[in-house]
Amino acid sequence: MRGFAMIGPNETGFIEKDDPKIGPRDALIKPLAVAPCTSDIHTVYEDAIGPRHNLILGHEASGVVMAVGEDVKDLKVGDKVIVPAITPDWSDVASQAGFGAHSGGCLSGWKFSNIKDGVFANRFHVNDADGNLAHMPEDLDPGVACMLSDMITTGFHADELAHVEYGDTVAVIGIGPVGLMALKGAVLHGASRIFAVGSRPKSVEVAKKYGATDIIDYHKGDIADQILALTDNKGVDKVLIAGGDTEHTFDQAVRMTKPGGKVGNVAYLNGNHMIEIKAAHWGVGMSNITIDGGLTPGGRLRMEKLASLIENGRLDPSLMITHKFHGFDHIQDALELMHQKPADVIKPVVYCDDID
Amino acid sequence: MRGFAMIGPNETGFIEKDDPKIGPRDALIKPLAVAPCTSDIHTVYEDAIGPRHNLILGHEASGVVMAVGEDVKDLKVGDKVIVPAITPDWSDVASQAGFGAHSGGCLSGWKFSNIKDGVFANRFHVNDADGNLAHMPEDLDPGVACMLSDMITTGFHADELAHVEYGDTVAVIGIGPVGLMALKGAVLHGASRIFAVGSRPKSVEVAKKYGATDIIDYHKGDIADQILALTDNKGVDKVLIAGGDTEHTFDQAVRMTKPGGKVGNVAYLNGNHMIEIKAAHWGVGMSNITIDGGLTPGGRLRMEKLASLIENGRLDPSLMITHKFHGFDHIQDALELMHQKPADVIKPVVYCDDID
Amino acid sequence: MRGFAMIGPNETGFIEKDDPKIGPRDALIKPLAVAPCTSDIHTVYEDAIGPRHNLILGHEASGVVMAVGEDVKDLKVGDKVIVPAITPDWSDVASQAGFGAHSGGCLSGWKFSNIKDGVFANRFHVNDADGNLAHMPEDLDPGVACMLSDMITTGFHADELAHVEYGDTVAVIGIGPVGLMALKGAVLHGASRIFAVGSRPKSVEVAKKYGATDIIDYHKGDIADQILALTDNKGVDKVLIAGGDTEHTFDQAVRMTKPGGKVGNVAYLNGNHMIEIKAAHWGVGMSNITIDGGLTPGGRLRMEKLASLIENGRLDPSLMITHKFHGFDHIQDALELMHQKPADVIKPVVYCDDID
Amino acid sequence: MRGFAMIGPNETGFIEKDDPKIGPRDALIKPLAVAPCTSDIHTVYEDAIGPRHNLILGHEASGVVMAVGEDVKDLKVGDKVIVPAITPDWSDVASQAGFGAHSGGCLSGWKFSNIKDGVFANRFHVNDADGNLAHMPEDLDPGVACMLSDMITTGFHADELAHVEYGDTVAVIGIGPVGLMALKGAVLHGASRIFAVGSRPKSVEVAKKYGATDIIDYHKGDIADQILALTDNKGVDKVLIAGGDTEHTFDQAVRMTKPGGKVGNVAYLNGNHMIEIKAAHWGVGMSNITIDGGLTPGGRLRMEKLASLIENGRLDPSLMITHKFHGFDHIQDALELMHQKPADVIKPVVYCDDID
Repeated sequence: MRGFAMIGPNETGFIEKDDPKIGPRDALIKPLAVAPCTSDIHTVYEDAIGPRHNLILGHEASGVVMAVGEDVKDLKVGDKVIVPAITPDWSDVASQAGFGAHSGGCLSGWKFSNIKDGVFANRFHVNDADGNLAHMPEDLDPGVACMLSDMITTGFHADELAHVEYGDTVAVIGIGPVGLMALKGAVLHGASRIFAVGSRPKSVEVAKKYGATDIIDYHKGDIADQILALTDNKGVDKVLIAGGDTEHTFDQAVRMTKPGGKVGNVAYLNGNHMIEIKAAHWGVGMSNITIDGGLTPGGRLRMEKLASLIENGRLDPSLMITHKFHGFDHIQDALELMHQKPADVIKPVVYCDDID
Repeated sequence: MRGFAMIGPNETGFIEKDDPKIGPRDALIKPLAVAPCTSDIHTVYEDAIGPRHNLILGHEASGVVMAVGEDVKDLKVGDKVIVPAITPDWSDVASQAGFGAHSGGCLSGWKFSNIKDGVFANRFHVNDADGNLAHMPEDLDPGVACMLSDMITTGFHADELAHVEYGDTVAVIGIGPVGLMALKGAVLHGASRIFAVGSRPKSVEVAKKYGATDIIDYHKGDIADQILALTDNKGVDKVLIAGGDTEHTFDQAVRMTKPGGKVGNVAYLNGNHMIEIKAAHWGVGMSNITIDGGLTPGGRLRMEKLASLIENGRLDPSLMITHKFHGFDHIQDALELMHQKPADVIKPVVYCDDID
Repeated sequence: MRGFAMIGPNETGFIEKDDPKIGPRDALIKPLAVAPCTSDIHTVYEDAIGPRHNLILGHEASGVVMAVGEDVKDLKVGDKVIVPAITPDWSDVASQAGFGAHSGGCLSGWKFSNIKDGVFANRFHVNDADGNLAHMPEDLDPGVACMLSDMITTGFHADELAHVEYGDTVAVIGIGPVGLMALKGAVLHGASRIFAVGSRPKSVEVAKKYGATDIIDYHKGDIADQILALTDNKGVDKVLIAGGDTEHTFDQAVRMTKPGGKVGNVAYLNGNHMIEIKAAHWGVGMSNITIDGGLTPGGRLRMEKLASLIENGRLDPSLMITHKFHGFDHIQDALELMHQKPADVIKPVVYCDDID
Repeated sequence: MRGFAMIGPNETGFIEKDDPKIGPRDALIKPLAVAPCTSDIHTVYEDAIGPRHNLILGHEASGVVMAVGEDVKDLKVGDKVIVPAITPDWSDVASQAGFGAHSGGCLSGWKFSNIKDGVFANRFHVNDADGNLAHMPEDLDPGVACMLSDMITTGFHADELAHVEYGDTVAVIGIGPVGLMALKGAVLHGASRIFAVGSRPKSVEVAKKYGATDIIDYHKGDIADQILALTDNKGVDKVLIAGGDTEHTFDQAVRMTKPGGKVGNVAYLNGNHMIEIKAAHWGVGMSNITIDGGLTPGGRLRMEKLASLIENGRLDPSLMITHKFHGFDHIQDALELMHQKPADVIKPVVYCDDID
């Protein structure tokens, strides 16, 4: 097979590898569309998962089943599928406890481009096909379907972590694609006023379309100060973190949250940095502000349920697809877009029309 | 009235004041027993709530109703009552949201010796008597009843914050009276193996009686290292923080917790210090380890429910009462015990038999 | 004062009474708008709360504060307010347990036209004004505000009882105003496909606007059969009951629900009838289908939070206001509309412009 | 293999069959101990699952691994294991939703003696060995371990369904082995006063040992009347149903529960009967009393966590083992005990010392 890989730190390129072997419950997939993620940038350029070599990148894809193991029941060759970034080992005790994302160890439900090769290849392997692949609705665009793999499910997970409820005032820190989906997820959990923290014009435009009522530009002052000022010093009910930085954002988040509120993080923090929260801002440890941070659940049911939101007109992920490429080799251009982040990019998608 | 007060920073003594006035829904209480708390020490010697003057101390008491306002329905003069440390304004929106402890503002459900004079007086005021005072069962010792005001309810709150469940492995950091109650609360939430972190011999002895299976002495090495070693590096399901320090304990707690686990804090942190957690220990923000910290709920129902545990033989708080004084003026000795913390003290109680 | 009352069983009319007295925490309100509810019909014509005489009807209103008791802090004469149908005693132990609707006894948080005179009067009494009245946003139409008192909060409570989640398939049984709000509440909890069970053309039209994807007409066959057929026999995740009948609807609801699903009821059942569920339909008692039924929470915070949904453009209750009357005496016509239920009525509102 | 089977309705006996085949993830187990369950009686004598022929009975066992499939990682031949009655397909969407007991369809996580042969055989098959078998602690008696398969986990599930909390007053209806474990589970969830409804002297004796504070004999009058009388007409917070009958028990349960309380059922109802609840007893549908009924979760993690309660001295299931047999063929005597239910039986266990 041929794939686009991290050849080594700060170096990417196309490589050839043997096709992956599939076990009795696995599937081999050909991508219909793929999308690069900021995590791929972290992997290649920021040493996020260590100095890997010849690791095929990518964890966002939709595709077509090319082969299935003998024990696969619900899928057959030719089926179109949504591929989640997180593909748990469902029998693992962590999955039984409700945390498939950590099956096999912390974050180990994330396998693509981490534990094994990723989806930026003409063929890729999916473990437990029945448990992890969802049938793609006929009328769903494969590029839009890619948004389900990670952006939608991760963004919505922030709302689940923060338990957004009817009438909540919510702050969303970071309005890249995950933050935008956290924002839309807040609307679909019943949030009323929503502060979107960000400044890139394209992101701001889309944030308003998804339901932001207030835009907070961090260039104009401390974001907690700004939000407290706009809420008569009451603060917000819930904060969704999908950006900011490891050291300062949690302190701001806690400071802008009402007692009894909740903070949900889905941002990928810098492991070597310290999260720092001034105890006074957290009610000297007793404000009943819950701080949670999670890796999105994945798997088949999750994809089916979130896809049904698109199918039934509740969610339009296409608003955040700013760039479309046709032809698998453009994955390089798409990744570079994520790396350079020009002002007009939110999320690029690569349609792999040319893969056999 | 006469009370034992913080006269100023680092200075305590008996003072005289006018009796408090009671409104139509309030009550005036004479203490049957009172107990000093480490929080009183924080108040007087550690500037925890600012440089107060002539503030009567204390928030743990049982007592007798001496007067009630005209709208009080369920209490009459002569009734014996359990007095919670936290006496919410139940109509406040924070109470309506389930967080009476923060009614009127963060931590403002804590009124005694904070927003108004405390219970170390021959007469003290209770707001919303029907909503905040519980009838004391006839056969309940007034000194034991004092343990309900704060120690029991606060300790058990840690278990609520951490959602301890059947078969959980739990670590309890700190085995002063609150930690001991967190430990017993874990047993009453179905915990199996319980690591109690502490070293004072009397506390260790009582911790074992309350159900600790393993004692971890922090003098013998990093507590996260010790607990990870004893659990095949798997860690625990839940951590209850009732001690340690503001800067380091949360990092250790998160590090010793399994993905998907929970950390519940009820320790009174130093407001000027930073909580610091290395992001890598928290799964780079995605381990699904929830961190919560809360002020115990208070009020009448809470006291009634927890008192029923004593009444029905589920809980014996007397194990942690190491010192009993008779005579109100001994409150000074009792507070000094909490200040000096000799090896044999867990919790002193002062019976106020001599108050008219 | 003058009010529109149940004079006796099956008899209504205007009566004169003394103005209500207000206690130190209460308020006296002049209505800006009121709306009749099917519950008023149950009260007058169906013996729902017993044979009452000269009981002023109504529990849906917005209004203006005419007087406040001396301990009221957050309201003053002239303030415009949203009045919830449910006005709990917030200090009651049931409220402390999270169930203010049952403060003082089962359903006793419902006071208007039940425990005391209702809101169909030129002046009415509100207990605990600070705890129960919400400031009405300046730009909110008083008739629309009336929808918050009961219809919106009750409908949304169905979604809370059934824990509607992202991507759920939901059935809403009954699409009167409460059912419509249950439906809209499902959309705002993240539901995807929504079956709306009803047949009146106006309700069907509005149901589609609020987000129904499928309309089920019970004249065309058993509704559980129809919904099972449309879902490949899988059934739905959640059922919201806002109509149907006491004896049969729960059996249908359980039969159309997936194992692990939930049924939330907010319909006012006939107390003398039996709810009947065939055990086989409920997995011989072990399907993990939760059945819950509740009276909406009320009070100030609830009104504030739901009003914020209107203010921020998440919810437009005006779609269900089919009839507007101007002049207080038209309450009689409006109630008669609810009684006769002609095909084009969903909800009438009476603007009380003429009350001094 | 040789097993004890339902030969047909009302007929049991030993039969011979071919040994089961194991797939790559399965295991073949030799029982160390087995126990008959009332469900076996329902199966044979009450047509609970239809007219089966030559179906090997039994779903409670501990055993030794005799063979494993090639993909089994955590178990090897010779390992002693706890076998749960419920062995989910963990990849199924129902399991992903948290309801493995219904993987493959309602109740289909229950496979032994239902979907396939049961455990009353010298060899039996376990699907997904890594996901469903727990290592048996060395010092755990194999007969006691059998109590984990169903009695303990099912009883405790009642407490989970009813969300028993600190200080709750609880009624347990039925004090056979499941009811006794529901009772003990209530103690381990923090219940205070516990009414145990039953009359058989041996069960009453053990119920008191497990923590019952009040015994209610249904021969002495309606149980709801009795419990309401003993609670000043307030009723209880939670009701756990592990007995009674399909038609009447739920009405009693709801009637004896406070508004906002919860009823959890784990009794196996008669599928052909109707559950009947008078609407007035359920607050005309609005009492916020939740009614839930579930099949216990099973699988490896559940067994590990509950076994840890025995290992750490929180739970002694041996109190309910009233009869011990040695020799596999005594399974017939043990089942007959469950069938006849003499006064002194709670739970028999058969040690299979004689199986090779």
